[in-house]
Amino acid sequence: MLDNIRIVLIETSHSGNIGSAARAMKTMGLRELYLVAPKQGIDQQAIALSAGADDVVKNAVIVTQFEQAISDCSLVIGTSARLRHLQNSLIEPRQCGEIAIQSVKCGEKVAIIFGRERVGLNNEELLKCRYHLTIPANPEYSSLNLAMAVQLVCYELRMAFLQEIPVATIENIVKTTIHLATAQQLEYFFEHTERLYQSLGFIQNQGVMQKLRRLYQRAAVEQNELNILRGMLTAVEKHLDFHKE
Amino acid sequence: MLDNIRIVLIETSHSGNIGSAARAMKTMGLRELYLVAPKQGIDQQAIALSAGADDVVKNAVIVTQFEQAISDCSLVIGTSARLRHLQNSLIEPRQCGEIAIQSVKCGEKVAIIFGRERVGLNNEELLKCRYHLTIPANPEYSSLNLAMAVQLVCYELRMAFLQEIPVATIENIVKTTIHLATAQQLEYFFEHTERLYQSLGFIQNQGVMQKLRRLYQRAAVEQNELNILRGMLTAVEKHLDFHKE
Repeated sequence: MLDNIRIVLIETSHSGNIGSAARAMKTMGLRELYLVAPKQGIDQQAIALSAGADDVVKNAVIVTQFEQAISDCSLVIGTSARLRHLQNSLIEPRQCGEIAIQSVKCGEKVAIIFGRERVGLNNEELLKCRYHLTIPANPEYSSLNLAMAVQLVCYELRMAFLQEIPVATIENIVKTTIHLATAQQLEYFFEHTERLYQSLGFIQNQGVMQKLRRLYQRAAVEQNELNILRGMLTAVEKHLDFHKE
Repeated sequence: MLDNIRIVLIETSHSGNIGSAARAMKTMGLRELYLVAPKQGIDQQAIALSAGADDVVKNAVIVTQFEQAISDCSLVIGTSARLRHLQNSLIEPRQCGEIAIQSVKCGEKVAIIFGRERVGLNNEELLKCRYHLTIPANPEYSSLNLAMAVQLVCYELRMAFLQEIPVATIENIVKTTIHLATAQQLEYFFEHTERLYQSLGFIQNQGVMQKLRRLYQRAAVEQNELNILRGMLTAVEKHLDFHKE
């Protein structure tokens, strides 16, 4: 699904930014990169900064005109500052992720456009975008690096993509292999604790046990952890018995 | 509110990454940066890559030990791969943002830890974190640049901060009066536990302490609970001393 989302960089000044953007894309599962009239082509710097994402850089399609990069796309989203005259079409990255994934699911081809490092997209380009994507940055310092912006947007695309997958995640499957202590086992532990620390004179009222119960309930104690906790109680008891003899 | 969230970078190899991370932080409204034993100090490269965020770089606090960077924090979150033995404490950036902002609202000081460029955090460091933050990256290529990871996490912190958090749940209201133990206090407790149970012959290798650390990190131990746990250790010690005499 993410394969149907294209990242387009317009007149990028620094080839390093192309490499970093490619890396950012690939970490989030995107692959399709278009470069419109880059100031520096794909060079050693671009490859170096792409780290293991040199395939994305090498497969990048270089075109001379903006229109060539979007002609086959039915949904075009352009990054932009929070401009007043665009306010009706402004979206943030999270919404962008949701809209793009929905569109792809409906068979659309999506392009997300990132402008020049310093001046972004020009007005003509902005007018070719259905939505205008703005990152809710610190108003006092909103200068995100180009590749950072690509990273954030691709992250939200991936998050929206992952949310569409309802099947049990790997995490849930793995979780079944953890065995939490049963209520009964916890109860034995609490009784054991209370017995021992009463005999030590530390527990003299119910308050302490209530607090300990709350703590260990909250912790969702696993069986192997409970074994350790019980072992600690027994270790203390043994020493007390030893001294009694 | 974002001022009470500290970003900690551990043994960063490249000073450029420090600069880029500072820029990423500032674009999202964060300012407090701690550097633990950076391989390259703050140099021209760090300043250059910070762009307009050189104030964040120049105000960074440099310490030699991890503990110094977290000792006054009551919520410590460490970035990590999706490790099996951490599965109970794994969170993703979005959840991290929500948890951190909730904690800050309750008066807590939060630290988010980013490990070394290649190898991340070591096991000992991971054990000092209550939550383990993992970015849901492309499983086939999950190699995010350090500053990119900082950018994503700070973005989610900002998003959580900007969201009009609706009505505080009862739980949250109650939480405002709760004071969690600091990392330093927890560390004293672990050391105390280890000392005592080694002397009792129960602890003979590192495995037990690692499991206990994981359990108590997960539990988010409150100060009054920690007082009880320490009191229990002392109660045992007193009896041992008594019998010795």
